[in-house]
Amino acid sequence: MSLLVVGSVAFDSVKTPYGEAREVLGGSAVYFAVAASYFTRVRMVAVVGEDFGEEPRRLLLDRGIDLSGLEVRKGASFRWAGEYSEDLNDRTTLATHLNVFESFDPKIRPEDVGVPHLFLGNIDPDLQRRVLAQVKPGFSACDTMNFWIEGKTDSLKRLLSGVDGLVINDAEARLLAGELNTVVAARRLLGLGLRFLVIKRGEYGAALFAGGHYFAVPAYPIERPVDPTGAGDSFAGGFMGHLARTGRTGGGALREAMIYGSVLASFCVEDFSLRRLARVTQREIDVRVRDLREFLSVDEPAPRP
Amino acid sequence: MSLLVVGSVAFDSVKTPYGEAREVLGGSAVYFAVAASYFTRVRMVAVVGEDFGEEPRRLLLDRGIDLSGLEVRKGASFRWAGEYSEDLNDRTTLATHLNVFESFDPKIRPEDVGVPHLFLGNIDPDLQRRVLAQVKPGFSACDTMNFWIEGKTDSLKRLLSGVDGLVINDAEARLLAGELNTVVAARRLLGLGLRFLVIKRGEYGAALFAGGHYFAVPAYPIERPVDPTGAGDSFAGGFMGHLARTGRTGGGALREAMIYGSVLASFCVEDFSLRRLARVTQREIDVRVRDLREFLSVDEPAPRP
Repeated sequence: MSLLVVGSVAFDSVKTPYGEAREVLGGSAVYFAVAASYFTRVRMVAVVGEDFGEEPRRLLLDRGIDLSGLEVRKGASFRWAGEYSEDLNDRTTLATHLNVFESFDPKIRPEDVGVPHLFLGNIDPDLQRRVLAQVKPGFSACDTMNFWIEGKTDSLKRLLSGVDGLVINDAEARLLAGELNTVVAARRLLGLGLRFLVIKRGEYGAALFAGGHYFAVPAYPIERPVDPTGAGDSFAGGFMGHLARTGRTGGGALREAMIYGSVLASFCVEDFSLRRLARVTQREIDVRVRDLREFLSVDEPAPRP
Repeated sequence: MSLLVVGSVAFDSVKTPYGEAREVLGGSAVYFAVAASYFTRVRMVAVVGEDFGEEPRRLLLDRGIDLSGLEVRKGASFRWAGEYSEDLNDRTTLATHLNVFESFDPKIRPEDVGVPHLFLGNIDPDLQRRVLAQVKPGFSACDTMNFWIEGKTDSLKRLLSGVDGLVINDAEARLLAGELNTVVAARRLLGLGLRFLVIKRGEYGAALFAGGHYFAVPAYPIERPVDPTGAGDSFAGGFMGHLARTGRTGGGALREAMIYGSVLASFCVEDFSLRRLARVTQREIDVRVRDLREFLSVDEPAPRP
């Protein structure tokens, strides 16, 4: 086991211009774990209700994900419902029912202590800090959201001084830094003690700030994105999964990991829920990684056979 | 003379969160020509009023720009006034007075015929087509805007079948293609007969679609952008200027040109009007080009001395 993820498992109801899906498997830990499962063994620490049936469990187990840390509690699983704008760039939350997730209290077991790689999904930063202190991982990154940035700023900033990296979207990065310019925001956030910062930009890809270096990866061009839900978590999963597989964490490894993040996110958006993301082949990943490297290459690529 | 540009010359009044500038030199042909002037000899075909004084003329001449095609007409020069949002991503036009630009009728002289490189700035596509037919350049690209996309669609589409490339922002590309997805929009626009398409994305950089290839360049990270006016035109100027200098137009040259476009746009936004863009050194350009190549490199760059 080389990658531990703590986060949410949810049933989502999503409407996009391309269709609708009701009560389908989602949640940050799920998208992250499935994306990372193509690269390394993943253990998930999360909570679900008694309504979490055999089908979603089977999907995760089939991806080789270790569910021994998945706690089943009395009550219903986390529910989220949302609707996307015509261009998929904006979404409206229609309903959030935290249910058992409201009192999520991640249980770290002895075998989790000292894992090489830890990803702290978007939960209360107090809990993220407690998990980090208990696990003492070799390498760690986290996500967060507006709710915690505004409500628990101090706790969050203390967390950031303890992890290696933060993977966050651009509006959140600006809010957290209290600065409208993304470049200045990135510098301020790195100043909190982070070794690296990944800013996710949706259809525009993602940017890596690490030390004095900067790297930008485009989103893989998708002609028919169906549902962007989970794309950011899939990015994080591909990113951390690649790092866990290689065991490297230098600047070059972080840049490569950005490409894997972008590729896994691209599969995520091609269908609702995990329908596409859970059914990717290694060959399909390799092709898109090769494509993205070409898209970044200043030299003209050789013609394809 | 190797690069001819046809477009607007204006006096702009601009307000941004970083300050205000009144009645300062602007216009698509001006930003384009100054950016391109770092790479090649540029001739500008445009119209101004009697109020176009010695100072703006001197600025352009000092950049080595050939103003023999700058027509002075009775009346006032084009005026534009606008105000930007706090994050500089949105702008509100406060006033547009076309003045002499309203009846702009580009005069192509015998010495303009057969120039190696032509850029058709954002003017009536009927005029763009007439200029293209008269000049018969070796290589050409054009820009346009919503007004012409909605009002003169057919003329514009005929223009696109005659030029090599289109340099346009992403909202315009989607509008012109009648398609919300940028990737599909790009494919449709290439299907109109273009050899390449550059989609400008503001702070997110720009993307090149050419044949089966795709290339994305980030915006050069600027900590204190002051005024984005003219950034897109400066991008086009750096892009076309580099192509004109090298005389190459293959896929590799187009990719390199994207980097030069991004670099010239980055200087443009650092101050109002041409204050920064007209005062760039070759060394400053080289440094940012080297930086951007590093930002695109998947391999970790060597530490800077």
